Amino acid sequence: MKPPLRVAVLGSTGSIGRQALDVIARFPDRFAVAALAAGANADLLAEQVAALRPRYVFAERVSPRLQEAAAAVGALAERPEAVAVAPDVDIVLVATAGAAGLLPTLAALRIGRPVAIANKEVLVMAGHLVREAMQAGGGELRPVDSEHSAIWQCLWGESPHAIRRIILTASGGAFRDFSRGQLAAVTPEQALDHPTWKMGRKITVDSATLMNKGMETIEAMWLFDVPMDAVDVVLHRESIVHSLVEFTDGSVKAQLGVPDMRLPIQLALSYPERMPEPPMPLLDLAAVGVLHFGRPDLDRFPCLRLAMEAGRIGGTAPAAMAAADEVAVERFLRREIGFLDIPRVIEHVLEQHEPLPSPSLDEVLAADAEARRLAAAVAPEVPA
Amino acid sequence: MKPPLRVAVLGSTGSIGRQALDVIARFPDRFAVAALAAGANADLLAEQVAALRPRYVFAERVSPRLQEAAAAVGALAERPEAVAVAPDVDIVLVATAGAAGLLPTLAALRIGRPVAIANKEVLVMAGHLVREAMQAGGGELRPVDSEHSAIWQCLWGESPHAIRRIILTASGGAFRDFSRGQLAAVTPEQALDHPTWKMGRKITVDSATLMNKGMETIEAMWLFDVPMDAVDVVLHRESIVHSLVEFTDGSVKAQLGVPDMRLPIQLALSYPERMPEPPMPLLDLAAVGVLHFGRPDLDRFPCLRLAMEAGRIGGTAPAAMAAADEVAVERFLRREIGFLDIPRVIEHVLEQHEPLPSPSLDEVLAADAEARRLAAAVAPEVPA
Repeated sequence: MKPPLRVAVLGSTGSIGRQALDVIARFPDRFAVAALAAGANADLLAEQVAALRPRYVFAERVSPRLQEAAAAVGALAERPEAVAVAPDVDIVLVATAGAAGLLPTLAALRIGRPVAIANKEVLVMAGHLVREAMQAGGGELRPVDSEHSAIWQCLWGESPHAIRRIILTASGGAFRDFSRGQLAAVTPEQALDHPTWKMGRKITVDSATLMNKGMETIEAMWLFDVPMDAVDVVLHRESIVHSLVEFTDGSVKAQLGVPDMRLPIQLALSYPERMPEPPMPLLDLAAVGVLHFGRPDLDRFPCLRLAMEAGRIGGTAPAAMAAADEVAVERFLRREIGFLDIPRVIEHVLEQHEPLPSPSLDEVLAADAEARRLAAAVAPEVPA
Repeated sequence: MKPPLRVAVLGSTGSIGRQALDVIARFPDRFAVAALAAGANADLLAEQVAALRPRYVFAERVSPRLQEAAAAVGALAERPEAVAVAPDVDIVLVATAGAAGLLPTLAALRIGRPVAIANKEVLVMAGHLVREAMQAGGGELRPVDSEHSAIWQCLWGESPHAIRRIILTASGGAFRDFSRGQLAAVTPEQALDHPTWKMGRKITVDSATLMNKGMETIEAMWLFDVPMDAVDVVLHRESIVHSLVEFTDGSVKAQLGVPDMRLPIQLALSYPERMPEPPMPLLDLAAVGVLHFGRPDLDRFPCLRLAMEAGRIGGTAPAAMAAADEVAVERFLRREIGFLDIPRVIEHVLEQHEPLPSPSLDEVLAADAEARRLAAAVAPEVPA
């Protein structure tokens, strides 16, 4: 029998991180926690460290309780990159939100280590740097998004030259059927109530604006090495078909299942094998009965269009867009701006942004900072 | 550039055979007709021979015109097996209906030649002999049914151990929503009007009784080496999802497309590559809008249940069932028996049949003959 796969979980206190720990706990013969890293939630991290006794720990904020728990098992790392490249780690799960996932991802890939990536911003901000790191080190990326995991599965055994189009499905978010007038009046409470997935606050709002789907189109470009013109989005309210691939001969493959993030997490760890047991109930298509598909409305949900445009422009444009979105969503959740101001802020920032092609990491981070500054200054059209 | 793949088309005058010749003609750099074989339609075969100039020809009935056309290109073969094992043939497409496909399939597999199989009866009658021939000769089977091609595609890059369940989709046939009373009154004209696929007469009636789907469950057992308990059928009226595979981890993959038999034909020839152009219009899921799924009703469509039972019993039972069905469908088309007598005839034959395990070819053919004799003698319940 093979020894268990040693997993470094970055972002272990977040939604994906906690589900990853569930998956690892279900198969103790196959998976083990080698390292944990987390941001603000030092108390939960302390609990996880005490229970799982990882060899490496990184914490953005160190509480006395965490200090104690970490001291009992090993030394606290100074930086999350140190956890990503620590010895005795077989795979790094990057489940941190935002830009924090970037340096650990690059560091792991550069030493040829597989990275299971649940963080959208890493590829959106710096897809070309991730690609370079993979090529330099031989590390591989395994998607943890349900959509990209679906595409990944559909591509097993296929030639990359056979891809005609990648088709991401979108539930349409909480306000799929809202008019523009209704959208203008949406509150943070409404936006945080996602119909299918239980997720963090930022990603739930991004799901309601379709920015989440827009970022996924950019991720898909980098993960599967296709141009934006080969990426498409179809509305699918049931969230049963997780995404599709259309091949050159017109054949389409799709991956389906009861929505549960533990499947893509589990698969990113078990690849190339599939685990013998599902982490969720089995899909009963006859009981589901009907699957709906439709076209996204880019007038009511301009964030999708903005993201795809930024993806087409490339360079620093997607990083600027993602930073503007992060600020705009924060401002919306603080009730400083309305729901329809989110795309307005992003569009305003992109209009002022002068994209640099093939930027360095410093240039990406400078574009990010500049976009945040601009986004914070855009006045709301509809005062909240 | 590779030389064109030399294809022997057995059953070239039938629906699948003619579509195969279309596919081959579209890609003259990739595919060439090396041999043709056909049954009753000697005139069309003569035309095909004159136009395509194959090196080998077999005809069940030789007309003077065919004799002349065949003489111009080469000698007529005595038996279809001779065409299947002729030199200068890279792949054999078995698109003959009924038992006629069996010997050529076994002969080609035994010499290690790939067989693209569009004939249901070969696997239903003698799946274990086909398996033995594959193992002995190293030949491979490539499915040409849209359903099995879908499953095949979903399994690329997957381990056979990862299969939990194979899910065949069924349009439900022409009488999906008919009551038993309506089914009793169905005429041959109604049964021959299939909503989606243009096919031969026998298979169109089998599609209306769901016997076609039942035979596909048995085919799936042999093609993908799974027990009948791992094969399932779901109704799907739009015929867009061609079939699905559920894996051990609960993930489901499906293959979709605008219904067109030229895709599975093309793919069986081009494998492991996909051709750069589709043979049919691309699928527009948003335009399709809705996909329906449901459970088949085994009370109204007992042929599906009978076929799966015969598949579970194994040995000569599926051969007896297929032979009984062939006779019952002929009798229905001759208006000797009613539509609901078709499953009655089959059930009657299966009740009397004493299945032999692991039968020889002679034993299969004896079971076939005996079942035909019994099926011809069953009196109709509802005189037509």
